[in-house]
Amino acid sequence: MAALRCNVAAVAPVAGVARATAGAERAVGVATSGAALGKFLGLKKVNRNARSLPAPVTRVSQKGAVSTRAVAVETLEKTDTALVEKSVNTIRFLAIDAVEKANSGHPGLPMGCAPMGHILYDEVMRYNPKNPYWFNRDRFVLSAGHGCMLQYALLHLAGYDACTIEDLKQFRQWGSKTPGHPENFETPGVEVTTGPLGQGIANAVGLALAEAHLAARFNKPDAKIVDHYTYCILGDGCNMEGISNEAASLAGHWGLGKLIALYDDNHISIDGDTEIAFTESVDARFEALGWHTIWVKNGNTDYDAIRAAIEEAKSVTDKPTMIKVTTTIGFGSPNKANSYSVHGSALGAKEVDATRQNLGWDHEPFHVPKEVSDHWSKHLETGPALEAEWEDKLAAYEKKYAEEAAEFKQLISGELPAGWEKALPTFTAENPGDATRNLSQTVLNALARVLPGLIGGSADLASSNMTLLKMFGDFQKATPAERNLRFGVREHAMGAIVNGICLHGSGLIPYCATFFIFTDYLRPAMRISALSEAGAIYVMTHDSIGLGEDGPTHQPIEHLASFRAMPNILMFRPADGNETSGAYKVAVERRKTPSVLALSRQKLPHLAGSSIESVAKGGYAVSDDSTGNKPDLIILASGSEVEIALKAADIVRSEGKTVRVVSFVCWELFEEQSAEYKESVLPAAVTARVSIEAGSTFGWERYTGSGGRQVGIDRFGASAPIGILYKEFGLTAENVVAKAKEIL
Amino acid sequence: MAALRCNVAAVAPVAGVARATAGAERAVGVATSGAALGKFLGLKKVNRNARSLPAPVTRVSQKGAVSTRAVAVETLEKTDTALVEKSVNTIRFLAIDAVEKANSGHPGLPMGCAPMGHILYDEVMRYNPKNPYWFNRDRFVLSAGHGCMLQYALLHLAGYDACTIEDLKQFRQWGSKTPGHPENFETPGVEVTTGPLGQGIANAVGLALAEAHLAARFNKPDAKIVDHYTYCILGDGCNMEGISNEAASLAGHWGLGKLIALYDDNHISIDGDTEIAFTESVDARFEALGWHTIWVKNGNTDYDAIRAAIEEAKSVTDKPTMIKVTTTIGFGSPNKANSYSVHGSALGAKEVDATRQNLGWDHEPFHVPKEVSDHWSKHLETGPALEAEWEDKLAAYEKKYAEEAAEFKQLISGELPAGWEKALPTFTAENPGDATRNLSQTVLNALARVLPGLIGGSADLASSNMTLLKMFGDFQKATPAERNLRFGVREHAMGAIVNGICLHGSGLIPYCATFFIFTDYLRPAMRISALSEAGAIYVMTHDSIGLGEDGPTHQPIEHLASFRAMPNILMFRPADGNETSGAYKVAVERRKTPSVLALSRQKLPHLAGSSIESVAKGGYAVSDDSTGNKPDLIILASGSEVEIALKAADIVRSEGKTVRVVSFVCWELFEEQSAEYKESVLPAAVTARVSIEAGSTFGWERYTGSGGRQVGIDRFGASAPIGILYKEFGLTAENVVAKAKEIL
Repeated sequence: MAALRCNVAAVAPVAGVARATAGAERAVGVATSGAALGKFLGLKKVNRNARSLPAPVTRVSQKGAVSTRAVAVETLEKTDTALVEKSVNTIRFLAIDAVEKANSGHPGLPMGCAPMGHILYDEVMRYNPKNPYWFNRDRFVLSAGHGCMLQYALLHLAGYDACTIEDLKQFRQWGSKTPGHPENFETPGVEVTTGPLGQGIANAVGLALAEAHLAARFNKPDAKIVDHYTYCILGDGCNMEGISNEAASLAGHWGLGKLIALYDDNHISIDGDTEIAFTESVDARFEALGWHTIWVKNGNTDYDAIRAAIEEAKSVTDKPTMIKVTTTIGFGSPNKANSYSVHGSALGAKEVDATRQNLGWDHEPFHVPKEVSDHWSKHLETGPALEAEWEDKLAAYEKKYAEEAAEFKQLISGELPAGWEKALPTFTAENPGDATRNLSQTVLNALARVLPGLIGGSADLASSNMTLLKMFGDFQKATPAERNLRFGVREHAMGAIVNGICLHGSGLIPYCATFFIFTDYLRPAMRISALSEAGAIYVMTHDSIGLGEDGPTHQPIEHLASFRAMPNILMFRPADGNETSGAYKVAVERRKTPSVLALSRQKLPHLAGSSIESVAKGGYAVSDDSTGNKPDLIILASGSEVEIALKAADIVRSEGKTVRVVSFVCWELFEEQSAEYKESVLPAAVTARVSIEAGSTFGWERYTGSGGRQVGIDRFGASAPIGILYKEFGLTAENVVAKAKEIL
Repeated sequence: MAALRCNVAAVAPVAGVARATAGAERAVGVATSGAALGKFLGLKKVNRNARSLPAPVTRVSQKGAVSTRAVAVETLEKTDTALVEKSVNTIRFLAIDAVEKANSGHPGLPMGCAPMGHILYDEVMRYNPKNPYWFNRDRFVLSAGHGCMLQYALLHLAGYDACTIEDLKQFRQWGSKTPGHPENFETPGVEVTTGPLGQGIANAVGLALAEAHLAARFNKPDAKIVDHYTYCILGDGCNMEGISNEAASLAGHWGLGKLIALYDDNHISIDGDTEIAFTESVDARFEALGWHTIWVKNGNTDYDAIRAAIEEAKSVTDKPTMIKVTTTIGFGSPNKANSYSVHGSALGAKEVDATRQNLGWDHEPFHVPKEVSDHWSKHLETGPALEAEWEDKLAAYEKKYAEEAAEFKQLISGELPAGWEKALPTFTAENPGDATRNLSQTVLNALARVLPGLIGGSADLASSNMTLLKMFGDFQKATPAERNLRFGVREHAMGAIVNGICLHGSGLIPYCATFFIFTDYLRPAMRISALSEAGAIYVMTHDSIGLGEDGPTHQPIEHLASFRAMPNILMFRPADGNETSGAYKVAVERRKTPSVLALSRQKLPHLAGSSIESVAKGGYAVSDDSTGNKPDLIILASGSEVEIALKAADIVRSEGKTVRVVSFVCWELFEEQSAEYKESVLPAAVTARVSIEAGSTFGWERYTGSGGRQVGIDRFGASAPIGILYKEFGLTAENVVAKAKEIL
């Protein structure tokens, strides 16, 4: 432990704010292993005295002094401490009461994080409660989403319409604006949807990235029209999740100085004390990731330390900052504080009473003291004023920088530039065939010229996914105005960062990329895209066994089915150039629905019957020699297998039968069509149907019907050249014909 | 950067082995940012001279001296350096030639890692090439699985039957034992299946955990019958993936001292220099995670440094060790070394020739010099001798510790104890209803008494997943003989660790647990379970909107369908106690197929018609008042909806129709049944069928047929109490009856 030998210049601790060096932090880790645990549990006694004078909570090394560094404690707009205390307790009890009424929820985090929540929403953050979508607002993400009553209470005090007292009373009820975890699509004022741990901090990285990018593109030395911070509260659980490390590594790499994360270091997770599974040094890890770190030893009552830490974080402009705020989960509850029992259950009437007594809160449930509501009411004035001030700034900017202002306003309007879709390339059957991953690159680069919001990249596979925008450079610390994102091999964070970029609400249209198989790695984030109405574009290449030699670890089988089963996500598998353009057309238009494009590694021919417009129907006849909507046979296929379906159709036709080939490029879009349209493509009377797709047959019965046949792959793939694989797995025109003959 | 101010006692660098402190490592990070990049590319010149005298490669700080610490360079069994060099080049060229012949693959890693590979397999590791499954062998995991030709070349030299020269010539071909990524089920000698990055190091944590656990259970002061190391080579990509941080955090927490990871620090990934996305200090991060770290500055030619580092790693028994081995990707290729172009493509004939000339290798492809094969042939003798020695030790152990030996031999035989299944609890309709998650706990605890291999735990949800084995304590650093694993909130690593425990091949039957929704977080590892034939048991509770208030972020919808579409995995959704027992019976028996148990949070009644045996059929009539296999209506359901199906059946029966209710507890098992059995359950003549399941209807057409109806949820869930959700989503007996009437 060489670092322990360091002679760090001794600096007197100031205001409870410590800067934990790697070495010192390790000493703390040693101290808390075992010995300190018992000590920490003793906090319950401290809490009992909270009414008279809350004792500062510090967890210090028993092996050596904690090294600290003096920080400049600048005076923020400070409120009378007694009033702050009252406000903080209001937040605590709104959370306690709402959870109690619902008899469901997580009171522990709000009780512990109320002080930092108060300081953020009352003293630090710039927002307008009358317009939750004001562009230049500071963003806040509760990565530990289960503690959402903290955020609802804060939104209530700040004056957001979505969180009236009545809304708080409807916590976790059907149709309420206060669901069990924060959901941006239900609650204006909530930026992103959190709950699945670790994703929120990655969303925050995306929000901070969007700010850094737009600031670099549009700000002028004399006009900062893009200028906000991104704050995030994350917990022990978030810090255990791998995605948070991925996202933090990227944030450090990108030097996102306006990202400020407050780590609720309460040492408790659902299974009990984090000592049982989480003994790493979080501070040292974040320092290794390139973050500035600060430690607030007493996050329960040392408001000045929290204020000073945030101020210091703001002063560090080239690195994101992680403020470790040591708190007591369930602070104030005499018998449940600092234990897992307060994490995820209502306190129970008896303990609520005891907590009221302990914290001197002799109000009825859901009470907000008048001096507290009076104090917070200022935000109803300052919020609109902040927005008006910014509008003035934007107007001045517009006068000096008309062109930039026009692009900026167009962008943040969220509307697509008129005629953008004309840039989409079209193809004829005479064009030389190509892999749809290459065609995707052509489309992306065409769109980059007409869509100022297009930004994205790959998880270290840009040259395989074909996702580089050639007219732009890399978004990097020194070049944040560029638009190629380099995510490294961090798929999960990539997806959640892209969600953050989407939900920044500034007209950015992010795409991201990896091999289709590795959607497994970012699936949790893709699901949140779908749920939270984030219209991200997932460019997923190497979409089947067609990738060949890399073998079964890299060959998707069940992936198409797995996304077709997921709500609110469009799963595209284009067969050629026109379908690739068509898929992008829908993907760009649907700003509230994410799209997945499964693209081939191998070359495919351009089809005579394809078109951009047809893709919007989801499934359409790409080839048909029947009349009267009565083909003898319908062959259904997607992507690279449409070519095989067409060959099979030729064989069957040569034997005197009529055949319709349907390209099922997007099932979800087909489902949206009218019954008439569906009947025109798949007439009920025609039951001789064969599907072919290089993936699981699961689900194809929906379109082949009970009497049909499905050609696909219901086992894992194998390592071999593509031609052999297609043959061995029966993905051939001959096999389709054979299956057809069984039912013709 | 307080740590930079540390005054670390200056120690002279010895043998190229540096112990990077957090501070010093950061200095290196600074140096390599930008400036050192150009410098590093200059290595190509160095490589051109490799033939005469390979220059040591070091990447040193330009801002300050790298702090190093003297390590004791103990002499391992050392081979003449010229011969080592020849062996190393043999490995390089076997990889080069195999990739060239396949015209597909990844030559860069094997060329850079050949030195550490040689030292591991020739000098360090204890194994028996004649019995790849010898229990006490050292385990090796190539987490950077794309470099598999390294492992195949090593297995070839070591004398494994699976990797003859002919096998190497069949690299990446159909049916070969040398697929495109390492696959344990294809290649004896390969321990786990890798390729999807980051999972291999987590598998290695599982292997090391299994060793630590069994050693604690069975070793005696005078008899170490369980005693091996786990080695792992991981690359930049693995270290970027979040899962590797999760796994490393756990390994540090558990103090797995016999886990030794060699980090191939080559600074190149697919998109180019890692400077574009990966500038964190990996060493400092691992130190923060509780690992011992060592830096080998020149992994290309400094064999002694590699040897000394491994020796030092072995001497640290209370922590896992991460040896950062700085290498040059594609070492020896004059024009492609140290660039992404050598990562994932064949060198091409011209560059192969240039590399041959550069490294003085004037042999035809796939040549193994006689002195190299002679040297390695010793393993064909030492290997069996090592195993024989261990067998003797085991025999001696058996004499002294008969009872323990019997359990140990039973365990590692992989066979289940006779009559174990008698411990499975059974239930009658008179038993009080319960949640299947609780019934699962009852079953797990019953099985813990009869299955000595049962070990597992939850990702911080033990008290919700109900997975604690009450008769055991926690597996922790100080108590490794215990069997409750505490994974923390690290689902992805949990899955991969469990795969490692499975594939340790010692009869351990691991289970792991989280909410069913969070299978998304560990899905990549679950897929590897299925592919690599690891019979892990996934205990997944809170299996539907039935969990209630937590809302859509926590409510599975598409998850059942997504696993039903995945090959070689059993997706169970038991309806009551007998079905829960029955699911465990199959899950335990199927040691080569993983099982997922989706379990309810809410209470369910025990059904009169359920049984353990029926579960093995996958789907069966749980209630039927028809005769002659001709019910008027068939209602299909799973899990918690079987109760609703039964109520609906009663209503329809009350109107004079006959109804069969089929519990579809596991589709995959139903698919395995004979056509006759299937017809007996779902007679083709009966087309009036309605399915009900609290999840996506996707796929149910397979069993309802085109004429049937599906009741399910094809949107996201919502936050509200369970009763309201079931009603609002139409999961009611009344709705089933209404649908039935449409088709009756």
